[in-house]
Amino acid sequence: MRTVRVEASSAYDVLIGPGLLGECGARIAKVIAPCTAALVSDSNVAPLYAARVRESLETAGFRVAEFRFPAGERSKNLEVWAETVSFLAENRLGRGDFVAALGGGVTGDLAGFAASAYQRGIRCVQLPTTLLSAVDSSVGGKTAVDLPQGKNLVGSFHQPSLVLCDTDTLATLPDVQLRSGCAEAIKCAVLSSEELFARMETVPIPDMLEDTITACVEYKRGVVARDEFDTGERAFLNLGHTVGHAVEKCGGYALTHGEAVAVGLAVVTRAAAARGICSPRAAERIVALLEKTGLPVTTDIGATELFEAALSDKKRRGDSIRLILPEEIGRCRIETVPAADLIGWMRDGGVR
Amino acid sequence: MRTVRVEASSAYDVLIGPGLLGECGARIAKVIAPCTAALVSDSNVAPLYAARVRESLETAGFRVAEFRFPAGERSKNLEVWAETVSFLAENRLGRGDFVAALGGGVTGDLAGFAASAYQRGIRCVQLPTTLLSAVDSSVGGKTAVDLPQGKNLVGSFHQPSLVLCDTDTLATLPDVQLRSGCAEAIKCAVLSSEELFARMETVPIPDMLEDTITACVEYKRGVVARDEFDTGERAFLNLGHTVGHAVEKCGGYALTHGEAVAVGLAVVTRAAAARGICSPRAAERIVALLEKTGLPVTTDIGATELFEAALSDKKRRGDSIRLILPEEIGRCRIETVPAADLIGWMRDGGVR
Repeated sequence: MRTVRVEASSAYDVLIGPGLLGECGARIAKVIAPCTAALVSDSNVAPLYAARVRESLETAGFRVAEFRFPAGERSKNLEVWAETVSFLAENRLGRGDFVAALGGGVTGDLAGFAASAYQRGIRCVQLPTTLLSAVDSSVGGKTAVDLPQGKNLVGSFHQPSLVLCDTDTLATLPDVQLRSGCAEAIKCAVLSSEELFARMETVPIPDMLEDTITACVEYKRGVVARDEFDTGERAFLNLGHTVGHAVEKCGGYALTHGEAVAVGLAVVTRAAAARGICSPRAAERIVALLEKTGLPVTTDIGATELFEAALSDKKRRGDSIRLILPEEIGRCRIETVPAADLIGWMRDGGVR
Repeated sequence: MRTVRVEASSAYDVLIGPGLLGECGARIAKVIAPCTAALVSDSNVAPLYAARVRESLETAGFRVAEFRFPAGERSKNLEVWAETVSFLAENRLGRGDFVAALGGGVTGDLAGFAASAYQRGIRCVQLPTTLLSAVDSSVGGKTAVDLPQGKNLVGSFHQPSLVLCDTDTLATLPDVQLRSGCAEAIKCAVLSSEELFARMETVPIPDMLEDTITACVEYKRGVVARDEFDTGERAFLNLGHTVGHAVEKCGGYALTHGEAVAVGLAVVTRAAAARGICSPRAAERIVALLEKTGLPVTTDIGATELFEAALSDKKRRGDSIRLILPEEIGRCRIETVPAADLIGWMRDGGVR
């Protein structure tokens, strides 16, 4: 098992390894005294793991109240979030109680934001069961739900009290989910490490999950420690996301988040190469690794449509937009460009 | 004009004096660069002051988008809050833009929580137009909306960037609103100052608004600086609120918040006197000042009903409840008692 310590406005451990769900009660009991746990999970994950988590929590002396919602990105909205906070109130959770988010990115975001807002903030433990949430969303305290106008438009910064990433859960992930997480892991490598990227080129990511997750969380730990509230360096983590979110939205969420990020990463990489910012060799390697991993690198959606969608995305700042652009593997830069130019960048990136 | 500087996780000024709404644009421009302002107010306040605020903001170079909602405590719910954040998204506010909350406590809470959650937090300026929001809710960063299960169950800590309290707006307040604010001001005096309380006994509060507001904000500034996130001393500000919230809820919000707090303050004061905690003379003076101010000091609602309502209130912590009890004017104590005992305290406080 690996442990990564995150030092943000509050400090907490991220544990990565097999068997953690079965021992989660005892692990949580080391940081949270006996109280009520609201176990939040979706209709896919609950049948697989909720009983195991409940039993472990109860054995460790916690009372458990279980909330389930329909699986899918479409549940990450204000209605399901309102149901979640109402559930906490109906079960009379107090300020000393906590929320356990068991599932993928949608669950972590939804349950994390519910914990953040209920009684102005109760504790939250993240139990990621997808590669995407393990490498990215479960760590760092960003929570959010979507509005019809765009993704992640309502949320908070609310650090978890503990993150337990049971790698056994990843072994049974559907391929599409595993690939989706690989996209975020590749993004991390492009941002931070030629060495990690080169390893991914030789060993398929699914064959080295514990190493990959640990490397990604260690990279993210540093970014979050230096820029918890996303006013500077943390923007790098949005590599591929401006276009990715637009692809996700325009496609009616038919692509997973990771697949959409893969498209976004490929588009900005090609555009950066076309403009002489990214070395041709690095661009080639990035697109090739995405493809080798089974991820999409192009989209049928037109640039005009993506542009409109991206402009309602929260990354627009006044009349300018920040693009994260690869230079080499392990090194990216932030470029602030007029929002109107985004369409040109997308065309340079191969969007029709 | 008076200025009180609040030093919390972020620092900001509270300005108190006449004519501030008419010059709000220039005042805000000193702390926020030209951008878009979402002006949030209710159906009572907007016709009175929104045009003045808009004009001042536009003159100072801000773009203004106006959101109005139906006046009343019943609007302080997740539905109206969701409409507010959707309005911010529809008007494409970015992370550099801000929300101006023009109105009373409901507006400040609703707009403050919307600003707090939209894009994980944009800035908020409070423009309180009621005595209650001027002395209490506009300062300190607590925001919240109600759930059917209880008051203020969902919200955040989000400090404003500036508070402009235009005392001219208080001169035109309906009597019931003015009295409601007086209840919170009297609460402040009971908590903090024999001198302030004695002044209130000789000069009616409405005749010394600027002094009263300044004294209350100065007291609150200290509490917030020492305990921004409400894990200790800030609980004192809940004096009268455990019973008050229950009175408000059981009465279907027929009483204003301040009236309900007056009842709650009278009840705990009598109970504290009955149990030898509060000096009989202080208890007499507190109840007398509330009555002299035109505030209710008793309720027809039975203790059992209030008890049930109070137990779903978020102040319940596990099986115990924290009561704030006057000892003398200017000195209170916190007593943690079994939740089940609350009914006895209420009976001792004169609830049937």
